Amino acid sequence: MSKTKRFILQEEQLPRQWYNIVADMKVKPIPMLHPGTKQPIKEEDLHPIFSKEASRLELNQTDRFIDIPEEVREKYKYYRSTPLVRAYGLEKALDTPAHIYFKNESVSPVGSHKLNTAIPQAYYCKKEGITNVTTETGAGQWGTALSYACSLYGLELAVYMVKISYEQKPYRRSIMQSYGATVIASPSMSTRAGRDIITRNPNYQGSLGTAISEAIELATQTTNCKYSLGSVLNHVFLHQTVIGLEAEKQMEMAGEYPDMVIACFGGGSNFAGIAFPFMKNSLRDDSLKTRFIAAEPASCPKMSKGIFQYDFGDETGYTPLIPMYTLGHTFAPANIHAGGLRYHGAGAIVSELLRQGRMEAADIKQLEAFDAALLFAKVEGIIPAPESSHAIAATVREALKCKEEGVKKTILFNLSGHGLIDMSSYDRYLAGDLENYSLSEEELQKNFDKLEKII
Amino acid sequence: MSKTKRFILQEEQLPRQWYNIVADMKVKPIPMLHPGTKQPIKEEDLHPIFSKEASRLELNQTDRFIDIPEEVREKYKYYRSTPLVRAYGLEKALDTPAHIYFKNESVSPVGSHKLNTAIPQAYYCKKEGITNVTTETGAGQWGTALSYACSLYGLELAVYMVKISYEQKPYRRSIMQSYGATVIASPSMSTRAGRDIITRNPNYQGSLGTAISEAIELATQTTNCKYSLGSVLNHVFLHQTVIGLEAEKQMEMAGEYPDMVIACFGGGSNFAGIAFPFMKNSLRDDSLKTRFIAAEPASCPKMSKGIFQYDFGDETGYTPLIPMYTLGHTFAPANIHAGGLRYHGAGAIVSELLRQGRMEAADIKQLEAFDAALLFAKVEGIIPAPESSHAIAATVREALKCKEEGVKKTILFNLSGHGLIDMSSYDRYLAGDLENYSLSEEELQKNFDKLEKII
Repeated sequence: MSKTKRFILQEEQLPRQWYNIVADMKVKPIPMLHPGTKQPIKEEDLHPIFSKEASRLELNQTDRFIDIPEEVREKYKYYRSTPLVRAYGLEKALDTPAHIYFKNESVSPVGSHKLNTAIPQAYYCKKEGITNVTTETGAGQWGTALSYACSLYGLELAVYMVKISYEQKPYRRSIMQSYGATVIASPSMSTRAGRDIITRNPNYQGSLGTAISEAIELATQTTNCKYSLGSVLNHVFLHQTVIGLEAEKQMEMAGEYPDMVIACFGGGSNFAGIAFPFMKNSLRDDSLKTRFIAAEPASCPKMSKGIFQYDFGDETGYTPLIPMYTLGHTFAPANIHAGGLRYHGAGAIVSELLRQGRMEAADIKQLEAFDAALLFAKVEGIIPAPESSHAIAATVREALKCKEEGVKKTILFNLSGHGLIDMSSYDRYLAGDLENYSLSEEELQKNFDKLEKII
Repeated sequence: MSKTKRFILQEEQLPRQWYNIVADMKVKPIPMLHPGTKQPIKEEDLHPIFSKEASRLELNQTDRFIDIPEEVREKYKYYRSTPLVRAYGLEKALDTPAHIYFKNESVSPVGSHKLNTAIPQAYYCKKEGITNVTTETGAGQWGTALSYACSLYGLELAVYMVKISYEQKPYRRSIMQSYGATVIASPSMSTRAGRDIITRNPNYQGSLGTAISEAIELATQTTNCKYSLGSVLNHVFLHQTVIGLEAEKQMEMAGEYPDMVIACFGGGSNFAGIAFPFMKNSLRDDSLKTRFIAAEPASCPKMSKGIFQYDFGDETGYTPLIPMYTLGHTFAPANIHAGGLRYHGAGAIVSELLRQGRMEAADIKQLEAFDAALLFAKVEGIIPAPESSHAIAATVREALKCKEEGVKKTILFNLSGHGLIDMSSYDRYLAGDLENYSLSEEELQKNFDKLEKII
């Protein structure tokens, strides 16, 4: 009998609202603090950095569902719904009784889930008369998505790209330039934050934290300019729930409900996107025992080894203080190839959910991620992004556990993006040049000691 | 009012048969000839090179529709239907009254339409007990698709990759290797065909014709090994009609019928794929005035400037003699970045259709193609393959003509693949380093003079 492989929604079935999980949390995340006054952030405090609408959404703790503006929904329709795919090839290769599904966000025109928040963020700016936007990017997925979104709305965009990625991934830069963006390697001499760190360490390869500092600084010093962030924040997580809301309907079409929901974890946006809509059900129904697993790199394990603490989102300290699991905002992550996961902290909502035991973390070593990626490519055809490969590796672990124990579980993971721009990393893996990195307790403690203790 | 952007078929609506246009042609293509005897090719003559099923299909001139094997259809379901997209962004940017649609083959796991024939060709080999397969690739799209298809069926694959692409596009090589294929730069020392040409010209950058010779030679000298071709041949065109058969249903969903169908043109496979199912209707109904336009590079203009002649499909002369529009099988095309279009000849069916006035050709210069590509990327989000950019450029020409003349026409083009592995070409374009190449009459004549005159 023919088995359905892909579940796709028609345009009229696309979600009309995003899901705001904070409204459903009995214990809310503790508030972000103003970096100067150390008082809880108010909407106006965010206006110098973000668009008004993003600021408003950031602090919304009451509305469970928030309308997707019609214009944004129209843009979503160009690539959404993304397919939910039953990974028969992977199941067979692992010889597992588990049923494995993945949500394929790699088919967006920019190749990742990041477009889901880039479009509304650019739209808010356009609507509010903003003309210029700044941002940072690590591996380049976020920068690519925002470049295209800004091109759609005729906004000028400057992207600070982490220097090591800028050099390792020249084609990411070309893609952003093709969409019309200006791309600057970070740290750069164009900001005080950049100059300071170059002065201290001329060979510094950059980090997301530094690139964020530079982008915020440029935004606050440019007329009619706002900054835009691709992860960590509440409004970003909100936008990404379109992934899970679709997946919920698609799993229904497949006649199954996930026992596990798995996503890779950098700042938390693709995890939130796939997980929150299913967590919505768990929050209301205690009998649901769905596990939510964040797959993070062993070299940057904020969820499994970080501490819960107020910390900055950037290296210099321009952002609000966020209550987060963190390795410290000056933490310089190892040079792994999953650039999008090299970030020191987790967003406030996911940090709170981890604290409440609503989710768990799995730490994945670099080689385990690439092993899983190659297997996946051979049996499912898609070369996954090094970031997404962490989710695949965690899925493989769980599917093999099902085999050992002889139990049939249903696993859903998010394939956040493809790896076609990351082939230099695959080249190095195939040549046997890649290493595993893990963090020593000493290194960890050194970074923790630098944190100002507020909690 | 919300306008539908993408038209997608459900799995049960996917075509169950391919369309064999030859059965509908009143005047059939004249037969291919055996290179030794110069007699019309028989099925058995093809067996040393191709699988039995491919050989059988190659000569089928009677069955209008041919069942897609259930196992192949199951594999198609992982990525088909591909979306039909209304290009509102491009229409707006051009300010044209034309309605523009594109069939998005770039969302296949390997990034192009080539998988549509790679899967059945690998399937036939598997079914017939073949263990090893050889092929050639230019830009790498075909080699990538066959690598994945062979990985699906556990076949060993050796790919001869045109040397200039091998060097310019190292990541294409990595992708094929990720799927488990062996990749050799062509010309190589591993075959007589390769050694001969290296001896004559040690700096030869390779051509598809040479790579085909090497792949055929290896196949005929290896146990249990067949050769597989990604374009030109009748059975390849047949497989690709799945594109147009889907598009026909999807255009119906959109409530329109194309006045023009446009595709880029290397050997003819993506053109045949999108065009033949619509030509089916034209062949039966003279009142349909649909134009079918092959967009070829001005530097390799076999359709607009070639001669109709029996010629070999490869450089050495291992293939049957094919009745084709050709620039001569020893023609060395200019080093343009659309590697997939650098082929000297057109398949027998499309050549005959051109002779009968059923289709036309447009020649596109390299810079016009990249201009169109960048415009498309900015307004539709997808970075097109340099090959597909030729189809976009031809579409832009026609859409602007509609604007000039104030007429609303419906244009459908095939986006055969994305250009994410071709960013080095975009880099050079953005840096202003790319040139236009055109062929002089003298150069053309020199190649024609070398051809043995059989017609």
